[in-house]
Amino acid sequence: MRVVNRRELDFLLYEMFDVEKLLFSERFAAYDRESVKQFLDTAESIAEDIFLPIAALVDKEEPAFVDGRAIVPEETKTALQAFADAGFFALTFDEDAGGLQAPWFLYTAISGMFTCANVGVTNYAFLTIAAANLLNAFGTEDLKRRFLAQMLAGSWFGTMCLSEPQAGSSLADIRTTATEVGDGIYSIRGSKMWISGGDHELTDNIVHMVLAKIPGGPAGTKGISLFLVPKRRVDQDGNLGELNHVQLAGLNHKMGQRATTNCLLNFGEGGETLGYLIGEPHRGIEYMFHMMNEARLGVGHASVMAAQAGYFASAEYAATRPQGRPIDQRDPQSPQVAIVEHADVRRMLLAQKAAVEGAQALCFYCATLIDQLRIETDAEKRRQLSNLLGLLTPVVKSWPSEHCLEANKWAIQVLGGYGYTRDYPVERLYRDNRLNHIHEGTFGIQGMDLLNRKVAGDRGATLDLLISKMKQTVEEASTLPRTAELVGSMQAALGELERAAETLIDCQDVKLRSANATVFLDAFGHVVIGWFWLRQSILAERALDGDVPETDRSFYQAKVVAARYFIRHELPLAVTKLSLCASLDDTALVADPALFAVA
Amino acid sequence: MRVVNRRELDFLLYEMFDVEKLLFSERFAAYDRESVKQFLDTAESIAEDIFLPIAALVDKEEPAFVDGRAIVPEETKTALQAFADAGFFALTFDEDAGGLQAPWFLYTAISGMFTCANVGVTNYAFLTIAAANLLNAFGTEDLKRRFLAQMLAGSWFGTMCLSEPQAGSSLADIRTTATEVGDGIYSIRGSKMWISGGDHELTDNIVHMVLAKIPGGPAGTKGISLFLVPKRRVDQDGNLGELNHVQLAGLNHKMGQRATTNCLLNFGEGGETLGYLIGEPHRGIEYMFHMMNEARLGVGHASVMAAQAGYFASAEYAATRPQGRPIDQRDPQSPQVAIVEHADVRRMLLAQKAAVEGAQALCFYCATLIDQLRIETDAEKRRQLSNLLGLLTPVVKSWPSEHCLEANKWAIQVLGGYGYTRDYPVERLYRDNRLNHIHEGTFGIQGMDLLNRKVAGDRGATLDLLISKMKQTVEEASTLPRTAELVGSMQAALGELERAAETLIDCQDVKLRSANATVFLDAFGHVVIGWFWLRQSILAERALDGDVPETDRSFYQAKVVAARYFIRHELPLAVTKLSLCASLDDTALVADPALFAVA
Repeated sequence: MRVVNRRELDFLLYEMFDVEKLLFSERFAAYDRESVKQFLDTAESIAEDIFLPIAALVDKEEPAFVDGRAIVPEETKTALQAFADAGFFALTFDEDAGGLQAPWFLYTAISGMFTCANVGVTNYAFLTIAAANLLNAFGTEDLKRRFLAQMLAGSWFGTMCLSEPQAGSSLADIRTTATEVGDGIYSIRGSKMWISGGDHELTDNIVHMVLAKIPGGPAGTKGISLFLVPKRRVDQDGNLGELNHVQLAGLNHKMGQRATTNCLLNFGEGGETLGYLIGEPHRGIEYMFHMMNEARLGVGHASVMAAQAGYFASAEYAATRPQGRPIDQRDPQSPQVAIVEHADVRRMLLAQKAAVEGAQALCFYCATLIDQLRIETDAEKRRQLSNLLGLLTPVVKSWPSEHCLEANKWAIQVLGGYGYTRDYPVERLYRDNRLNHIHEGTFGIQGMDLLNRKVAGDRGATLDLLISKMKQTVEEASTLPRTAELVGSMQAALGELERAAETLIDCQDVKLRSANATVFLDAFGHVVIGWFWLRQSILAERALDGDVPETDRSFYQAKVVAARYFIRHELPLAVTKLSLCASLDDTALVADPALFAVA
Repeated sequence: MRVVNRRELDFLLYEMFDVEKLLFSERFAAYDRESVKQFLDTAESIAEDIFLPIAALVDKEEPAFVDGRAIVPEETKTALQAFADAGFFALTFDEDAGGLQAPWFLYTAISGMFTCANVGVTNYAFLTIAAANLLNAFGTEDLKRRFLAQMLAGSWFGTMCLSEPQAGSSLADIRTTATEVGDGIYSIRGSKMWISGGDHELTDNIVHMVLAKIPGGPAGTKGISLFLVPKRRVDQDGNLGELNHVQLAGLNHKMGQRATTNCLLNFGEGGETLGYLIGEPHRGIEYMFHMMNEARLGVGHASVMAAQAGYFASAEYAATRPQGRPIDQRDPQSPQVAIVEHADVRRMLLAQKAAVEGAQALCFYCATLIDQLRIETDAEKRRQLSNLLGLLTPVVKSWPSEHCLEANKWAIQVLGGYGYTRDYPVERLYRDNRLNHIHEGTFGIQGMDLLNRKVAGDRGATLDLLISKMKQTVEEASTLPRTAELVGSMQAALGELERAAETLIDCQDVKLRSANATVFLDAFGHVVIGWFWLRQSILAERALDGDVPETDRSFYQAKVVAARYFIRHELPLAVTKLSLCASLDDTALVADPALFAVA
């Protein structure tokens, strides 16, 4: 089993997105193609040699709740230590914050290998990085001095505490309170639910980033503040002190991603829980949203990586498992062939490849947008980059959660009965991936974000910008003999996208418009992925017209076939869905809730 | 939690398929609407009170392999005893075989409740019934005398032993041998894989129906014979004797349906395994196929029931879980609403309802075809019924495996994070259902069966018969004011189905045709389900035009809405897929297997 296809990665970085241009910037001056390669080599070997081999074990031995403690397999700690030793916790942080100031595309490539290998263990690292990001961006110098270095070293882990039992998607309704007891110090009381990495004994301390309400503040999300709440108190010199009464009340037993503890935490139980205000009061949601693009990109990318792992496993199985004969071979005594010889097995592999590599291209495109935002100084260009990233964020979060999960389904199917057992990784990957549709904002929430905020919000201006980029690609493709075939489908899709978007933007009935949001998101995602396939096909055709070595020839030919698969099999489905949106479908909207009562 | 919607069942039986007509026949003379109701009442109470409450437990405590024995939770035995005590093992067998001679629709309704409640435990019963069916149809009077009564009483269970480690979908390649050692008695040697219920200590004996090759017979499937192989030998008087050396070599650890042991069995290990020939030598596959329609109907129906359980659970959750506010309610201090108030949640419920009730209608249609076949004497009518059942069998097996699994996905989504935990049944149902796409013939195998054997095999004659029935429904719908809206979509789908089928039938390149088989099956299934929704909509509109009580009004309105959902949201996707088939798509066919090597 592999954790990455390095040829694919090089294709994305250097042929498709030309990241070397980013490396010329002052911000990334420490990086060049060679040092990027060294980072990738290190990550690949740790992910493949340490994270991958324990993936089945940490799934099977799910965290146990023993005497109020969360116990996880020892191997989890060893793996994360290797991740920390390589410096990966600090990868994207600025040098003056103690980080390596690496470009986001490099972080994406590296994190991809780890999530492909073992998402459950890797989650601890990503959560820590996300919490450290918040602290670094909005925390006081004093808090940073006491907490940040430990987090960037991977010595203390971090969490994000948003949800509560009664408030999942609806943060306005959280009830956790923060009462000031000193300068910037608050007493925190309440329960937080679904806290990934919320408790464990992997590190000496855990740094929770907690949303809570300061009594007397505004109602709803405008009254939410952000607090740093350690598991153990930390004195002014950064020394560990007594426990901070963040009590583990129970573990959730999940279908997948089981290596990551998922906790119900009670703050202020059995003693006072002290928290430190991050930034200004009542701006907690705003701070969270500052991190949201990266976090949602991370979830979408993890979904792609689960599917990539399934694709690798099923492609390997298909190439080596003998079963059956060609349909025109009727002699039962002829030898069986590898199942990849059956066209329908190749169809299932193509479906996976098209979803994985299409979505991976989108992830890296968004990663380069983040990098460009970090180096761009022109205000208008920054605005465009930021809007484009905002428009694509719900897609990168949701499209893989839906269609790369589907890819995991086909990976199981290729393996047949074997795929349904724990002897192979594909059933675990399918279980792992199912979470990605839920956390960091569900499919429905992402749809509303896309349609109401990102598309209707600027009356289609950013969408038009993206569509104009897509049309450029279509024009380019139409001049090449072999991509020309795909142009018609892509034009049809773009036409229907414009028609649906226009109708939805013009729709003044926000309920009716919103009732079409999820379907619109799904279909829009298909058009975006179709665009990335068209771009990949153009690059591949051009390479094939040149003088490429034999191994590369096969790589590019595979790109051409996968592009054809996506645009023939998948893209027309989006046209159908966009037509439905353009009709302002009200089927679900007008359905009386009472109709779903089971007699 | 419920295991059945009785109002829905009555609708299917008495309004949609008018099963009372079947009950007028001599064969089913013992049954009337009242006795059917009593059977259903009994089944419902056993399924709901005994099978449902242990479903989570038998999933969690999966079978253990201890000292060569398969250990399952004691509760499994208690539940199956209740099933046996109610006489359900003998339900469909002829009275002169010791059975209750019930119509297949009644068996379908009853088995549906049990699979909805707890598929893992119920599997033991269905496998026993399938094995008993084979014995009853083709076994000698002597074998029936010694084994059948015990099986129909549920005292001994049965299994089907087809697959081997190297021969799953490719039965031609089985290696298990049967060497004659006496009159009709054979020595069996070989390994059988994926044997559901293959070993356990729930009953004193297990009756395996085993496919094996008599040395010197024809190659391939034409050399396969069928044998009855007991776990313990049974003397002429039916007394249990010594062990028959069917050795449990290991258990497969599955993602779902975990209550059912899944075994690797070695025959002839540590001593001689005796088997008894069923029927004539070399006709084993033919006998198996005799049972195939019922078995595949059973798998498809189990898939529908997994989705029904998910629909019930998520509809109940949606009605009671408060979260968020209407999109046009901006006051964060207004009370939260139940999530069913959000249109996108209703969309997910409609998607489930449309899949579940559409597919359930197909299952009952097929059940009534089986019943009609049992009472019809006219040869031409029998031929038509048989062909129609054969045409629909791959659809009833596969469509739910794909689209009712999708429904289970949405059930999890409605519950959000809770749905991803073992505290609710929806994640288990999703895992359980994933198997149905694999066993009893994969999606790909069913596609080939449909397109090559059932559609091209008679050059579309049976398909035309079905299409003419569909067109009658369309004509009927076009005369009603409110179903008329749906007619256009259905006509478009039928037109594209005819075009695709004609092209595929005319295609002389069997490889090219077959490369379109799975997509054709999927899309054809949509058209069939669309037809059943149109029929349900017609019935509902007519009822609503009449004088119905208020509770019934809501039932019929829900039908109208779900029909509209399916025909607006789903059916057009089939048209798109049929267009692809009509283009004789060769994308996967021409893809070089070498392209899938991971670099």
